[in-house]
Amino acid sequence: MDGWDKPGHDETENGVAKVQGMTPDQISALDAQDPLRAKRAEFHIPEGLIYLDGNSLGPLPKAVPQRVCHAIEDEWGRRLIRGWNEAGWIDLPRKVGDKIARLIGAAPGTVIAADSTSINLLKALSAALELRRERKIILSDAKNFPTDLYVAQGLVRGLARGHELKLVEASEIHDALDERVAVLMLTEADYRTGQLYDMRALTARAHKMGALAIWDLCHSAGAFPVDVTGAGADFAVGCGYKYLNGGPGAPAFIYVAPQHASAVSPFLAGWMGHEAPFDFDPFYRPGPGIDRMLVGTPAVLSLSALDAALDVFADVDMRLVREKSIALGDLFIAEVEHQYAGADLKLASPRDGAKRGSQVSFHCAHGYEAMQALIAAGVIGDFRAPDIMRFGFTPLTLSYREVADAASILVRVLSEGEWKKPQYAVRAKVT
Amino acid sequence: MDGWDKPGHDETENGVAKVQGMTPDQISALDAQDPLRAKRAEFHIPEGLIYLDGNSLGPLPKAVPQRVCHAIEDEWGRRLIRGWNEAGWIDLPRKVGDKIARLIGAAPGTVIAADSTSINLLKALSAALELRRERKIILSDAKNFPTDLYVAQGLVRGLARGHELKLVEASEIHDALDERVAVLMLTEADYRTGQLYDMRALTARAHKMGALAIWDLCHSAGAFPVDVTGAGADFAVGCGYKYLNGGPGAPAFIYVAPQHASAVSPFLAGWMGHEAPFDFDPFYRPGPGIDRMLVGTPAVLSLSALDAALDVFADVDMRLVREKSIALGDLFIAEVEHQYAGADLKLASPRDGAKRGSQVSFHCAHGYEAMQALIAAGVIGDFRAPDIMRFGFTPLTLSYREVADAASILVRVLSEGEWKKPQYAVRAKVT
Repeated sequence: MDGWDKPGHDETENGVAKVQGMTPDQISALDAQDPLRAKRAEFHIPEGLIYLDGNSLGPLPKAVPQRVCHAIEDEWGRRLIRGWNEAGWIDLPRKVGDKIARLIGAAPGTVIAADSTSINLLKALSAALELRRERKIILSDAKNFPTDLYVAQGLVRGLARGHELKLVEASEIHDALDERVAVLMLTEADYRTGQLYDMRALTARAHKMGALAIWDLCHSAGAFPVDVTGAGADFAVGCGYKYLNGGPGAPAFIYVAPQHASAVSPFLAGWMGHEAPFDFDPFYRPGPGIDRMLVGTPAVLSLSALDAALDVFADVDMRLVREKSIALGDLFIAEVEHQYAGADLKLASPRDGAKRGSQVSFHCAHGYEAMQALIAAGVIGDFRAPDIMRFGFTPLTLSYREVADAASILVRVLSEGEWKKPQYAVRAKVT
Repeated sequence: MDGWDKPGHDETENGVAKVQGMTPDQISALDAQDPLRAKRAEFHIPEGLIYLDGNSLGPLPKAVPQRVCHAIEDEWGRRLIRGWNEAGWIDLPRKVGDKIARLIGAAPGTVIAADSTSINLLKALSAALELRRERKIILSDAKNFPTDLYVAQGLVRGLARGHELKLVEASEIHDALDERVAVLMLTEADYRTGQLYDMRALTARAHKMGALAIWDLCHSAGAFPVDVTGAGADFAVGCGYKYLNGGPGAPAFIYVAPQHASAVSPFLAGWMGHEAPFDFDPFYRPGPGIDRMLVGTPAVLSLSALDAALDVFADVDMRLVREKSIALGDLFIAEVEHQYAGADLKLASPRDGAKRGSQVSFHCAHGYEAMQALIAAGVIGDFRAPDIMRFGFTPLTLSYREVADAASILVRVLSEGEWKKPQYAVRAKVT
């Protein structure tokens, strides 16, 4: 694992990196030495495409179609209602949760897969406020992913008990964490820039102030090693369709720290969270531990897809994923900056890979158009308003060669004004 | 459509039906004349099985495997993130909602498919309480499906503003509907007995008292004609996996009456309900009408299955479904009662088909064991605590012959004491 950890950076006198390009031979050597290179064969990757959007929707693991087909034709079609017992549908939220637990440093039995990230965040937030009844402030980052903020705004409005969602800049979070804060709610990796929060330090600070900490791991789980236990996180949520490759709209997950799991009585109470769902008791009695975070009937087909997708990680050392992720991001930055000096492109992500999630973003005033042109040229990233061109790096599927090529194509699209063609200005529903 | 609407009932002097069996020829004639008989070919129905549990999990429509396979391999696998626009994923909740709207008498654009029934009920209940801020009572049936009661209990506890879930017997609902009630929350067809509430009359009564009405249509949608518009329902919810055949844990639906849709600001607020999700606005602005009832990212694979499943209904006249449903239920009751006089089996459903959903239930003290023995004998119904043997009739897939045979097999299991074998006493996780 050498040769790529400093890919062409030389410090200049004023501390700004002066980047150098890599030779094709150097890049080939990186791919030849890549300990994760065999994983790509476990995915369907369309030919002729460089996919740098696995942080928005992970590619299709080859095990998924067969598994879902089996769930439909054998489990549902042939077993019908008996599938709940015979095919283990009833246990899927816990089974899938345990596979995710391993990736986020959670103990078995502390995570379930169900519902959406937004719904799970509402469960976590309402539980946290219940545990800190005397406090009224939910503290978050003004640039947090919008749905996180909307969930908190909806809850504050619904509770109508004088709670407040306090939004500050990332740099102000530490100082804003005072003894009036009930819960700190942050996304570990910023969805626009990839900037990482220090989960351990901020959770410790929250606890010192008597607050609880909820972490959104949408851009963390499956992207790099996460340690909710070591960080002391109280709650965590995340989605199944980004780095976990569970498919569009895959079920999300929720982690509840063991000391809280049986101490909260969920606001979102449903029959699957009851102590004995098939007693048909008219009165809610929360199930043991994490079980009570279940609400309605599990989405078996989607959970089956996610379950199969997670098996890709069974033999993966997440430290290797992190090493390659940083190397891919460093390479992309270096190649873009080496080849392109235009003032219209400015790095939005931390240059230091250790402070970055598994993505690299650039500010670009015509980023929407440039991204459409880039997609037409075979490189898929995405655009995030107002001006972010975002590129995700999924170490299980990407080669160094692809990342270097993507950089060259991006440079060409910008240099040659390809993005100015009128068709690239047409706005799509989903950007 | 004659010959089956009075299947073997003769009134005796005291008004109790004296039942007569039908001859095989009479039953064959019913099947030959059945205008829905061709629909069965659109489903995978395992051979050698009589499936009377489509009210718990509908059978697999043949269109589903191919559609889900396409969603996985082409839309996700090949198009990747572009599927949101190119494959129309972003519009699926509304598209599927419109197909369900037609089945429940709702206008296009008033229903979305998303989340679970429990989550949708929480949306409806919280919105209804917002519209009736000055009132504190949620009125429901003590025998309502438990998850409905749990959702209300969770909300009452979470709001902590002195709300009360008032539970009464079905016969007391009308009188309990007074001017203190904020919202009446009922399931149209009782999950145990199939007893139907008069949605129109009770909604009118609720409105007269200034209350709102939420109807759970889990056992109605796809089972018989529903008219939420004509009944004046304020909100309705229901699941996708029973009579709609969307598969295990299929997405549920929510209907909001047009006059309320833009008047409520959802408690459960998420990015897909925002006016402009891809503006990434930090402040929630609810989308137009029913759109604001969306929360998180739609479960595309599950929605695709449900979307394909609903096409089965495209050419179906729901009045014919209702006629056949009543006839199948009447036939089952008549055949069971004609052949079996044991005191251990007692009809739990209304004898009058017009007052019954698409199911027939019997009280039976050893119902759990008897149902296990019946399933082993090739007839699948289900058991609902404490003593209900439940049989669902799905007119699109069942023949009169099957229903008559199921009655005979049930009688044999009971008469011969088959159910006393020890293996049938072993409790399963899901009953």
